[in-house]
Order: sequence, then C-alpha cells, then structure tokens
Amino acid sequence: MVSCSFERMEDKIKTFSQFGDTGKGGITRFSLSPEALEARGEFKKRMEAIGATVVTDDMANMYATIPGVEGLPSIMSGSHLDSVKQGGNYDGVLGVLTAMEVAETIVKDNIPHKHPITVVVWTNEEGARFEPAMLSSGVICGKFDKTAMLNSEAKDRKGYTFGDALEASGYKGEETNRMSPDKYMALVELHIEQGPVLEAEGFDIGIVEGVCGMINYEFTFIGQADHAGTTPMKYRKDALYAAVRTIQYLHDELDELDSKLVYTTGKISAHPNIHTIIPDEVKFTLDARHQDPEVLKKALEIIKKIPAEIEKCEASYKEAWARKTVTFTSELVDYVEKSAQEYGYTNKRMYSGPGHDAQFMIDVIPTTMIFVPSVDGHSHCELEHTSVENCLKGANVLLKTLLYIDKQ
Amino acid sequence: MVSCSFERMEDKIKTFSQFGDTGKGGITRFSLSPEALEARGEFKKRMEAIGATVVTDDMANMYATIPGVEGLPSIMSGSHLDSVKQGGNYDGVLGVLTAMEVAETIVKDNIPHKHPITVVVWTNEEGARFEPAMLSSGVICGKFDKTAMLNSEAKDRKGYTFGDALEASGYKGEETNRMSPDKYMALVELHIEQGPVLEAEGFDIGIVEGVCGMINYEFTFIGQADHAGTTPMKYRKDALYAAVRTIQYLHDELDELDSKLVYTTGKISAHPNIHTIIPDEVKFTLDARHQDPEVLKKALEIIKKIPAEIEKCEASYKEAWARKTVTFTSELVDYVEKSAQEYGYTNKRMYSGPGHDAQFMIDVIPTTMIFVPSVDGHSHCELEHTSVENCLKGANVLLKTLLYIDKQ
Repeated sequence: MVSCSFERMEDKIKTFSQFGDTGKGGITRFSLSPEALEARGEFKKRMEAIGATVVTDDMANMYATIPGVEGLPSIMSGSHLDSVKQGGNYDGVLGVLTAMEVAETIVKDNIPHKHPITVVVWTNEEGARFEPAMLSSGVICGKFDKTAMLNSEAKDRKGYTFGDALEASGYKGEETNRMSPDKYMALVELHIEQGPVLEAEGFDIGIVEGVCGMINYEFTFIGQADHAGTTPMKYRKDALYAAVRTIQYLHDELDELDSKLVYTTGKISAHPNIHTIIPDEVKFTLDARHQDPEVLKKALEIIKKIPAEIEKCEASYKEAWARKTVTFTSELVDYVEKSAQEYGYTNKRMYSGPGHDAQFMIDVIPTTMIFVPSVDGHSHCELEHTSVENCLKGANVLLKTLLYIDKQ
Repeated sequence: MVSCSFERMEDKIKTFSQFGDTGKGGITRFSLSPEALEARGEFKKRMEAIGATVVTDDMANMYATIPGVEGLPSIMSGSHLDSVKQGGNYDGVLGVLTAMEVAETIVKDNIPHKHPITVVVWTNEEGARFEPAMLSSGVICGKFDKTAMLNSEAKDRKGYTFGDALEASGYKGEETNRMSPDKYMALVELHIEQGPVLEAEGFDIGIVEGVCGMINYEFTFIGQADHAGTTPMKYRKDALYAAVRTIQYLHDELDELDSKLVYTTGKISAHPNIHTIIPDEVKFTLDARHQDPEVLKKALEIIKKIPAEIEKCEASYKEAWARKTVTFTSELVDYVEKSAQEYGYTNKRMYSGPGHDAQFMIDVIPTTMIFVPSVDGHSHCELEHTSVENCLKGANVLLKTLLYIDKQ
C-alpha cells in the first residue's frame, strides 16, 4: 500500500513551525507578513526541489504543480499558511504540508498518475490581518469584489490595505493563473478538525460532508459619556452595562436551543475606554453556527427580540456575515471514506463548524475535505496539536483520495 | 463691589475652545500634545500682556505671577489645560481662565493687594495620555516618584514616555521653580462640578469641603482561546462571559449599598478580540467613590467575595488606585462661602467626586476649591457646558476669596 513518510512529515511540521514562532508553542503569522513570506519561500524552494513549477495568481495564491500527462487538468490539494494572532502550528499549514508530502511521495516513489498534481496555498484565509476571512479564494470564486478587497474594506490595524501588502509581497502574479475548472478537475483540502469530537470519540479521520451554516452579528450600544465620580447611578446611560445585559440575555436564550449550536461573543470594544468615564459606545460580535438552517433561524429570532433601548442606551444590531450550509461533492466524500477504510483508519462523517477556502471552491470545481483530530479540540491557540502519526494518516488518506480522483 | 468682566470671560472661553476643537462642541487636548502647546502659548501671551512673569518647573507646570509687595509669598489659583479624548471646553481649563480673568481684573481695575497673584497650569491632570492622572502635581507634592513618571510607568499609546513629551514640549523648566510653601501661601482651584447636583438643586456655587474617597480595581479573567465554530458550549472557558457575569454581580451587590455611591466599569479589553475566537483573557476596571470610608469598605467586601473561578475561568482582581477622603482648609472654605454670600449667589457645601490637583496641594499649602454648575451634569464629553454667566459668578467668588486670603 502506498504510504507517505513519517520522518518527512515530521520535518515539514517542525520546519514550518519556525516561521512566526511565538516561543510559546504556536505562531503568529499574519497573511503576507514577513513571517508568512518566509513560509512561502520555504514552500516554493521545497516544491521546486521535487520538480514542481510554481506560479502565483493576482491574489498571490500559489500553485505548485508536478507534471502529469500533458493537456489533462490538474488535481488540487492545499490550504493556507497564515494564522490568527498566537495561533497554532496546524490550522491551515497542515493542509499545505500534507499535500506537499503527498506530491513528494508520488515523485520519490514514482507512483503512476495521469493528471498533474497541484499543491495550492490560498492567501489570507484567517482574516486576522485583513477582513474578511477567505479573502483570496473568495475573490477568485466570485464571492467578493476584488477592488473592494484590495482597498478600503480590508485595512489592517496599521492602515495598510490588502492591496498594499499584496504589492509589497513579491507574490502577486497573473490573473490568468487563477484556479479555473478548465485547468483543475477537483480539490481536496485536508485540515485539522479544530474541535474535540474526533479525539473524544476515538476516530482517526473525519469524512467532511459539508460546512455548517453560520450567522455573525455586530451589536452596538449608544449611551452617554459622563464622569465616573459625579453622575448618580440613576442618571447614567452606561453602554457597557447595556452590552453586559444583552450578552447575558443571549446566553440565557441561545442555551435553550439545540445542544449542537455553538455561539461566541469574541470581540468587544468600549469607547472612550477610560476607567474614569462612563462608556458611551460599546460594540460586540456574536457568531453562531449549526448545520441545520432551522436552528439558525431560531437563533436569529432571539437576536431580533432585543429591544431598541436597554438600560437607557440605544441598542442595535446588524448582520456582519452569514453562510448557508455547504455540501461537498458526494463522489469525493466517498473516495475519502473508502481510502480511510482501506488503510484501516477509524473514521466518522461530519460537518465542519469553521469555514474553509474549500467552501468557496465547491461552487467552481468538485471539492471535499479531510479532517484529522485536534488534541483536546484546541485551535486558533498555541495549544493546537495533532500528533505526527495522525498527520501521516491524514496524508495517506489524501494520497489515496487523489489517486482515486486520478483514475476517474 | 469688585467684579470680573463678562465679555473678557466669554472671549477667554471661546478662544481656548479652539485648541483641539473636535468640531462637535468639545476638544481633544491631550497633555503636551500640539493642541495643548497652542493653549499654553496663548496662556503665556495673555499673562505677559497683563504684566505677569511666566516660569515653568521641571514638570512643565506653568506659573504666571503678577507682582505684589516684594518678599511676600504668592496666592495661587489655576487648574489644567489638558482634556480627555473628546472632552469638553470647561473641565480644567475654566479654572485657568477664571484665574486669568481674576488677575486681569486686579491689574486693569488696580485692585489693591499685598501678595503676588500666581495663575498656575498643572501638567497632565487627566491621565488620558499618560497615566496616572494628576501626574505632575503628584510629583511635586511627593505622591509619585519622578523617575518612574518620566519613564516606563507613563507611556502613551504611541510608546512615548511622559519624559519624551516633556523634553519635546519646550516647557520643561527648573526644579527650583516648583510650588513650595515658602513661595506660595495658598491655592484656590475653581472647577466645574462635573455632576448634576448644583444645577438640579438650583445653586450657583459649590463650596467644596473636600474630595470623596475612591477605590479603583482591575479585574482579570483567564479562559481558553478556542475556535468559535467547533468547541461545544459545555467545554468552553469563555473569559468574556466570566467578565459579564462579574459585572452583573457587581451591579446587583453595589446597588444595595448607599444611594450616593457611584461606581463605573469604564475600561474593558478582550484578547485576542477576534470574532471567531473564544476570548482567553478579559480585563475590566471598577471605580467606586463615596465620601464615607465605611461605604467604600463595604464595596471592597463585595469585590473580595468574587470567587477564584467563574464560568471555568480564573478570576482575579488587584487594586489599581485608591484615595482616602480629602478635607480642605476650613478657613479657605469659609472665605469661599462668605464671598458667594456677599455677591448674593446661592451656594451649597459639598464633596467632590472627581479627583483634582488640589487634593495633592492640600498636603503642602492651605487649599480649597470652588465649583460652578455643569449643565445636565455632563463632563468628560463634548456636551460639557457651563453658561458664561455662571463662569463669571465663579470668577467673582474666586476674586473675592483671593482678596480675603490677601488680607489674612
């Protein structure tokens, strides 16, 4: 049975963990940052060393292709190299590293294949430096307007636009190099689960059937800034307290819905945010996800019940982001399942909670995903971990899946 | 009866409201910022025009003195020219402008006096750019260590220390110019009330007997950063939710104490503060004030009942700042009261909720304060307002009080 190399897999993980190393077990590798450019350089060097041709498109997405029969479309696998602030060594990068290892195995073991194999790196998946997440795959799949993404809608905290960072990166290529259905026949993205289910239930491989639907709202509370030392409590319009009451309300109500619903108030800001002034403006975000649209509809009803005035402050909310449930290509899902079974790896069909570039690709070419377990379910943090053994199992399933696609 | 000029008072308020004008009725004039330096320049120009000698000390506090009998100590009045972010046109600056108007009236009307009169500007009272508040009066009164204030403990958001800003300002003078009891016999600081009491109860003048005691605590909650899309609710350690529960607890408990207690959760921060990540660290501040130390003791007992673990997050708190109740010099308080009565201005004895430079001065020289009403009690915001008529009443009481001190 074909198999990838444990030692090479381990070396890849160790090497890429250095780029943006926080010194505390994880990385901070914002998209197109110096650390991300180091990782891109290493990717290019290693792919060229196994005979790949590397090109970039106009969004700095990288495509490293090992040849097959001339004229046939390529089979694609990969993910992203950027991370959140103080993120882990597996989210995104493992999808690139396993695809690299699969390509290296095919080349070094001379595994017969007809179609070229392309390892892809998508730019700015996390949205941690430039909002929104999955910016570049979104642009090439027609989800986002390119001009808007290059300019004002996507400024980082220093005021640079995504366009500025793209120009400075040296990785901006031709629009004609973009992924398109005439050149690429399918995409398989391997990713860590980023949740506790596979590990807790003892599975090696997640067979990903699709991506959960999601709603994301931003809430704003407008009060009145006054001096902390003089304004009697009864006259106050404290925007932070209005926000606190609302977060508590959301917990009370959303906890009554389905137990599989996950929701998060991840971001909060107060103005003027000084300890001696009553806050006059507070904002926070709510992210809620479930694979059943009916449950999300009920969550939205709960949001809509928030009154226009809370604790004498104006309360309002707006949709920042939403995603319908995505279903992956069933033939590819079956290939992943069959591959896992042939290796004797335990496996489970499941939906992804997080979003991935693959959810945009499915509108353009046949697409699916493979999950490997996350230790304790940790992700987007330095504790993120997947054993090399599990990574290798994922790489093997990916290899076999690509070979099944090749034989289609 | 001696009286200051309405027209001159109005002109002073209008002129100084331009320095840092937000265009929305208020100012942002951080300490030693370009806007604050403009205000200082105007102060110097106007004081020199009426014959004052202007010197600065090593903390850039400005002293503009009109002469009296040689060898006698000076009577001092003034406040600060810096503001909070999007603050008003009266907090601090009105104490400087009324003292300027008093000095101008004495000079122009040839009002007899023995002691020199010094108009003072204290540097960085607000603490909005460099923490802590009342930094420079604190240093010269021995409350804060000068070296610590110049360096790391007082960095603004751009990383400049207070020392950097001081050097660049052009207003750093000699340590020998500092306020000291041999050169100055008393201080009277006029200030807006910054609360609603005087206006609501129909008083022209607040006779300030002292400053309320205060406690200020910073709370920290440590949870676990995980991906918003995958971690089931029951496994989460959400530091923001732990903070929300605690703010609600503080409201529930503190509201049961004395109705004169004021408390504020003004500042909050979440880490990593990204909408798709469960926050792993949240901090907020609590400021509580009351003139009775017993009430503050009970507030502290409420804080100490916070458990070490809330919503599976570590909870902790530490004192950031505290102030005992301050009592002003009773003879000076009586002079203020007598002066207000002679003009026929309605007046009320009261305690200050906010802190003022005067609370440090009382340890060095006889000190008191005069309050004028704040419309709707607004302060530290652009809505801050006091009518020129009320400002003039304050200036007249200040003038008369200084003349009483002069006759001591």
